Amino acid sequence: MATRKRKRSAGKANLSKERKKSPYFDVPFRPWRNNYPKYEIANEQMLEDIHDASMQILENTGMRFQDEEAMELWEKAGAKVDRKTQHVWIDRGLLMDLIKKAPSEFTFRARNPERNQRVGGNNVANLSAAGCVFISDLEGGRRPGQREDLITLGKLIQMTNTIHVGPIMTVVMHDVPVHEKHLDGYWLGATLSDKPQMGVSHGRVITGDVIKMAKIIHGEDLRPEDGPVTGGVINVNSPLVYDDRMLGGMMTFAKHGQFTVVTPFILSGANSPITILGAIAQQNAEALAGIALLQLVREGAPCVYGGFATNVDMKSGAPSFGTPEGAWALMLGAQLARFYGVPYRGSGTLNTSNVVDGQAMNESMWSLWPCIMSHTNLIFHSAGWLESGLTHSLEKFVIDAENLAMMQHFLAGPETGPDAFALKQIDEIGPAGHHFGTEHTQARFTNAFYPPFLHDRRNNGQWLAEGGEDIVVRANKLWKQVIRNYEEPAFDSNTKQALQEFVAARTKELEGVDLYD
Amino acid sequence: MATRKRKRSAGKANLSKERKKSPYFDVPFRPWRNNYPKYEIANEQMLEDIHDASMQILENTGMRFQDEEAMELWEKAGAKVDRKTQHVWIDRGLLMDLIKKAPSEFTFRARNPERNQRVGGNNVANLSAAGCVFISDLEGGRRPGQREDLITLGKLIQMTNTIHVGPIMTVVMHDVPVHEKHLDGYWLGATLSDKPQMGVSHGRVITGDVIKMAKIIHGEDLRPEDGPVTGGVINVNSPLVYDDRMLGGMMTFAKHGQFTVVTPFILSGANSPITILGAIAQQNAEALAGIALLQLVREGAPCVYGGFATNVDMKSGAPSFGTPEGAWALMLGAQLARFYGVPYRGSGTLNTSNVVDGQAMNESMWSLWPCIMSHTNLIFHSAGWLESGLTHSLEKFVIDAENLAMMQHFLAGPETGPDAFALKQIDEIGPAGHHFGTEHTQARFTNAFYPPFLHDRRNNGQWLAEGGEDIVVRANKLWKQVIRNYEEPAFDSNTKQALQEFVAARTKELEGVDLYD
Repeated sequence: MATRKRKRSAGKANLSKERKKSPYFDVPFRPWRNNYPKYEIANEQMLEDIHDASMQILENTGMRFQDEEAMELWEKAGAKVDRKTQHVWIDRGLLMDLIKKAPSEFTFRARNPERNQRVGGNNVANLSAAGCVFISDLEGGRRPGQREDLITLGKLIQMTNTIHVGPIMTVVMHDVPVHEKHLDGYWLGATLSDKPQMGVSHGRVITGDVIKMAKIIHGEDLRPEDGPVTGGVINVNSPLVYDDRMLGGMMTFAKHGQFTVVTPFILSGANSPITILGAIAQQNAEALAGIALLQLVREGAPCVYGGFATNVDMKSGAPSFGTPEGAWALMLGAQLARFYGVPYRGSGTLNTSNVVDGQAMNESMWSLWPCIMSHTNLIFHSAGWLESGLTHSLEKFVIDAENLAMMQHFLAGPETGPDAFALKQIDEIGPAGHHFGTEHTQARFTNAFYPPFLHDRRNNGQWLAEGGEDIVVRANKLWKQVIRNYEEPAFDSNTKQALQEFVAARTKELEGVDLYD
Repeated sequence: MATRKRKRSAGKANLSKERKKSPYFDVPFRPWRNNYPKYEIANEQMLEDIHDASMQILENTGMRFQDEEAMELWEKAGAKVDRKTQHVWIDRGLLMDLIKKAPSEFTFRARNPERNQRVGGNNVANLSAAGCVFISDLEGGRRPGQREDLITLGKLIQMTNTIHVGPIMTVVMHDVPVHEKHLDGYWLGATLSDKPQMGVSHGRVITGDVIKMAKIIHGEDLRPEDGPVTGGVINVNSPLVYDDRMLGGMMTFAKHGQFTVVTPFILSGANSPITILGAIAQQNAEALAGIALLQLVREGAPCVYGGFATNVDMKSGAPSFGTPEGAWALMLGAQLARFYGVPYRGSGTLNTSNVVDGQAMNESMWSLWPCIMSHTNLIFHSAGWLESGLTHSLEKFVIDAENLAMMQHFLAGPETGPDAFALKQIDEIGPAGHHFGTEHTQARFTNAFYPPFLHDRRNNGQWLAEGGEDIVVRANKLWKQVIRNYEEPAFDSNTKQALQEFVAARTKELEGVDLYD
């Protein structure tokens, strides 16, 4: 026993020594506040014009809601409906009355209250890439996602302090049966991480199960006034259709006070006009209609206005990501969300590259900067996204994390206060001296500047002598180090057991059941 | 002869066909206007505080001007001087009176008037990386720059429509004797490109030669009221020293109405305080003192406020580029330049990477976005910079050019006007249709979206089948294609001959002469 003990503590010491090797672990966990200017490319008249265009779309063209409960709600509320074709025309008076009921901010609660995340206002939270079909890394290449990849990503997300929201469905688990995916996915998210946890918004059965699991973790009553503990993303089937699966999921969440990120999937030139103002007018109409419906389901239901508009490539018809057009759309969306007083969702690392190269990072920075400039509140896909979102790259995950850590430092702003100008030191040193040795410098030596963990500042000779590795090779080593350092967060054992039992029982129950009945 | 003729035209046809292959050649030449918001991270009080701190530095600590002519000018103007130690103390009244004389905008004239560039206000111009010791490309690797590399880069710069200013001293020509470098460099710049041309600001002899060459090209009188035809960058020897070479160069340019980019070389934590506000207060004091001196040399001398402040890496003491601290500094500098009413210079692709990888592009985008956000007027080093500026990379040049082309599209803003909302088309298509076939889409098919020339949007299968090349491999092919397509701009043959004769004669004359006498 004694021997074993010694071995264990030796292992721990090594782990802690290894942690010290990388400043990755020194980036503090901190909710982001964006107190910088809001970068607004539309003037008031343009905003009013977009608003008016969206109202005309909802009043004159109308939308389809492929769900009987939704149709009933619209009819009762006084909208013009055609129940046979499931078509609804909403006038601007009714719409704006409903939009006003959506909260401008809310608290997204985690099972660890220290991880609670405020959504809206100047608050910013980052989420990992999600919904990817493939996983990739330098050694394993690109391959269909498996359960073990979801676990790897879950660990990375928990250990990455600049990602504020926990893991859910980061990659498709091709080795888990369809009826188990949502149960297992939510279970893995809940146990691997103590950060606030998104759910799955896909029909009444699946989303109902998420609510049941959330209740096991957070208590049977899930008081909406305390703020949601889960939520989902839905994509409008643009143009102008909400299908039954999306409606079933979002309405189930709203009923229980949980939130929905209402995200039209707008591809300018394909499912919406080729002109960005037209595309945004359509996006705005679709997003507002969904948010309004959720207020009919439950007054004050927390909603996030989702912006995911980009353009197609006119040569191939394929979506393009990290484009100037996408930046315009993202920025206009943020201004509109503020105009209506609801939180805004964007995406932080969209790109079309097949490989983690300069293109991948250029396009990603055409996503992240506009998110920050426009005051996006929830930055989805802010680490790992590759190949138009088909692939989750483990190397890109930690490379993106470097940009997020830099952004966290940037948002904090430079030191202010009486000593910030260092006039005494400038005067003492005078012309032609240096500041390395001053007390003023020494006191700030460790923390003044952002210390990179992947960006390499060695000179060429040193860099070559030590292997000449590019950022992808270094990233490969880093994500494996992070995984080795993973520590499972504390979880009340009774709650954990109850959750596990529910998942086991429900998995059996759902065998052969139509999840979208 | 007939055969030869056919061959020639076949060659031309191939060239034009090859041009068509790359949308690189379709990016239009266009002076940039930045009508978007100014991203200002300092409030009025902070700006006033920085101003006050800078004034205290100039009044109480003072600066050294290592040049007798400069000392005489300061003394005559009424500044407190110590001629023995070449130390000057400038009070804020005198300083601000002089700063007011510097023009807020001016026209930087090119030998081709269509290439004239307005500097200041909302105008933006991009310049290539310059002053690099090494050149690198995928096949040749990293090697000391030679004359032929300067020619290659000159051709690239002329052919790249998003670079507004012509080539000068992009790399050090290790195979050209010291006394010939400025003559040959200016000659190559003048003949390879018809864009406005920077000169060399290094002592009275070298800069005097540049003035003589500029006069051969632009006419003997070089009327300052028409705007400068050349200019130079000087770096203050921070902290608080202007050396004789810098002063000799900048004062020579000012005497002839040519402009100077007054750029303190600020490394926070080394030659200036570790706190960014302290570093910026020092930069501001240094920049203003230089601009003020040039107004003593010639009232109304065109000046640009240069921001080049970044932090050192506290582990190695080496400069770090593309950092959050650098972004703060750049943005604060732009606000200060506006506060004083002078144009602003920043840098567009600063990075510390040893290789054209994700780090190089991340850090570059930590330079380019802040330049655009802060309304930088002259964006230096906006293509090709690598390895802290030691290396000029031919592949990175065209990769950076992609970001510039995207930025050009972004700055133009989305289509507005009566048809932009496409309400008629949205209504006709209704729910669940698509916009590919509409007349509205078809009419805009070719020009609506930015068409990338290096960013690759092929799907994974197609990309792999066609070679699976990353962006660096594609960039290598592209820059060679651009060089093959190079066309020398027209140049009046008498002027060209006169310039050539001057260079030849002056080269002989300068053999063995001390250039800094």
